[in-house]
Amino acid sequence: MESFKVHILGCGSALPTLRHNPSSQLIEIREKFFMVDCGEGTQIQLRRSRTHFSRISAVFISHLHGDHCFGLIGMISTFGMLGRTAPLHIYATAEFKPMLDAQMEMFCRGLEFEVIFHPVSTTLHQTVYEDKSLTVETIPLDHRIACCGYLFREKGTLPHIRRDMIDFYHIPISQINNIKNGADWTTNDGEVIVNSRLTYPAAAPRSYAYCSDTRYIPTLYKLVKGATLLYHEATYTTEYARHAKQYYHSTAAQAAQVAHDAQVGRLVLGHYSARFDDETVLLNEAKAIFENTILSNEGLVIDVKE
Amino acid sequence: MESFKVHILGCGSALPTLRHNPSSQLIEIREKFFMVDCGEGTQIQLRRSRTHFSRISAVFISHLHGDHCFGLIGMISTFGMLGRTAPLHIYATAEFKPMLDAQMEMFCRGLEFEVIFHPVSTTLHQTVYEDKSLTVETIPLDHRIACCGYLFREKGTLPHIRRDMIDFYHIPISQINNIKNGADWTTNDGEVIVNSRLTYPAAAPRSYAYCSDTRYIPTLYKLVKGATLLYHEATYTTEYARHAKQYYHSTAAQAAQVAHDAQVGRLVLGHYSARFDDETVLLNEAKAIFENTILSNEGLVIDVKE
Repeated sequence: MESFKVHILGCGSALPTLRHNPSSQLIEIREKFFMVDCGEGTQIQLRRSRTHFSRISAVFISHLHGDHCFGLIGMISTFGMLGRTAPLHIYATAEFKPMLDAQMEMFCRGLEFEVIFHPVSTTLHQTVYEDKSLTVETIPLDHRIACCGYLFREKGTLPHIRRDMIDFYHIPISQINNIKNGADWTTNDGEVIVNSRLTYPAAAPRSYAYCSDTRYIPTLYKLVKGATLLYHEATYTTEYARHAKQYYHSTAAQAAQVAHDAQVGRLVLGHYSARFDDETVLLNEAKAIFENTILSNEGLVIDVKE
Repeated sequence: MESFKVHILGCGSALPTLRHNPSSQLIEIREKFFMVDCGEGTQIQLRRSRTHFSRISAVFISHLHGDHCFGLIGMISTFGMLGRTAPLHIYATAEFKPMLDAQMEMFCRGLEFEVIFHPVSTTLHQTVYEDKSLTVETIPLDHRIACCGYLFREKGTLPHIRRDMIDFYHIPISQINNIKNGADWTTNDGEVIVNSRLTYPAAAPRSYAYCSDTRYIPTLYKLVKGATLLYHEATYTTEYARHAKQYYHSTAAQAAQVAHDAQVGRLVLGHYSARFDDETVLLNEAKAIFENTILSNEGLVIDVKE
């Protein structure tokens, strides 16, 4: 199966600690890399991850709090020094563009690659990126400022041809494409061989939903329904539910409720408040509601699979 | 003796590595903390240093390359979250102010402390800060963009009174201040006791010069003459002297030449090119010219003393 992985570069929250970096993730899909959020120090985390910098084609910023975007200008600057020539696409709310332009004007003159800005609406659920194997949709979230998550969804692939059946019925090569696309086969004797006997079904398309930062949204599950993997912020335990509400964050139990309601494959928690020295308390709280939950951690690479 | 220390938070150069952070130092003088430069990740280095964040009263930025200032907005933002109320003074070239203002407007609304910007000229040698025990002077440097170093100079202190002599001559308390300020004492018999018999000399004022980034300046020694400690960038070895010239940096030998000509007490090297896995080669090159040389490294705390 083609690769589909999530590399956790940072999963702390706004206050920096020595245990966690601010938010950033790399989504690796079929040799391509996409970044979600880019807190301060992300470029160093990238070095640590030993992934290929140059393959990052786009950065999706959830919102304009520093712990989600302060590392972007440094990363762009470093890409320039490393001789990057491929364009870099930035997805963020429109108000970020003048800031980014001003920073690049002051700090990144003479870049040999283009930085292409794509404004996204954080209130609409839209497809903002599409290529032949993937779409990326925005997920409107409920934070103190305009904020959206991103849903990475593989496109369905065609079923696999059963070589043995093709040979058995002497089906010519010219028909393979039709059969991949669902056609039955009629033999010279007029016997109809139904498509399902000629093919193995394709693997189900996988999906990854990134939801940070947000208050608990009871209807969020509809947008991330059936996701193979869901990252949902879990800044607090239920003990701090009032903080969560006040600062527009979620508890681990609320993250798990979304995972449960959306019937996702797996839940990964992150965006931990600096007050927790050990996030096991968050994990346990979530597992009581949604068993298939894990904790994110810097350096963790998660396979997005059933 | 009062404390006077330099904490190295980062001593790498523009390209980030896993071994060095970008430029930043804390200068600790008599319970006060001043920062020089603030590359990306400095606030994390500050946490590691276990110094008191809140005591940093001013940040002196040498120039507007990202590896010397990208960490400032994150640090200011964090100070805000930590409830700082004391003003923070920023010294940098005037063109930085609109950028800093725009960043604070976008990312740091509702700060409960004042950020006070002081434009500095990078072409003049001027005193830009003064309090009762210290001055900070700019040191014009020769880099690709406007750049200056900073010289932290203790003010001279009054000599120490010799208690034994005061008692012996029955000198009244009311005269102590005069004697501290250099007065002789005339006994009732008309004998003149010269001041030098009544006092111990004060410790010589110490000074620390920070010079980064810069091409070799043959006359720089005049401005840092006799400094107790000199930090001079040493991006390259002599083998890369052409790179040094082209990119407006110095070799370790050139740094040592400045130290030698200025007759400083000690030289500390830094701003290492990412190409050196082991900076001993830089150290050895410098020591051949100026023996009392050390390498900076993250976490190193250098006592500024004779």
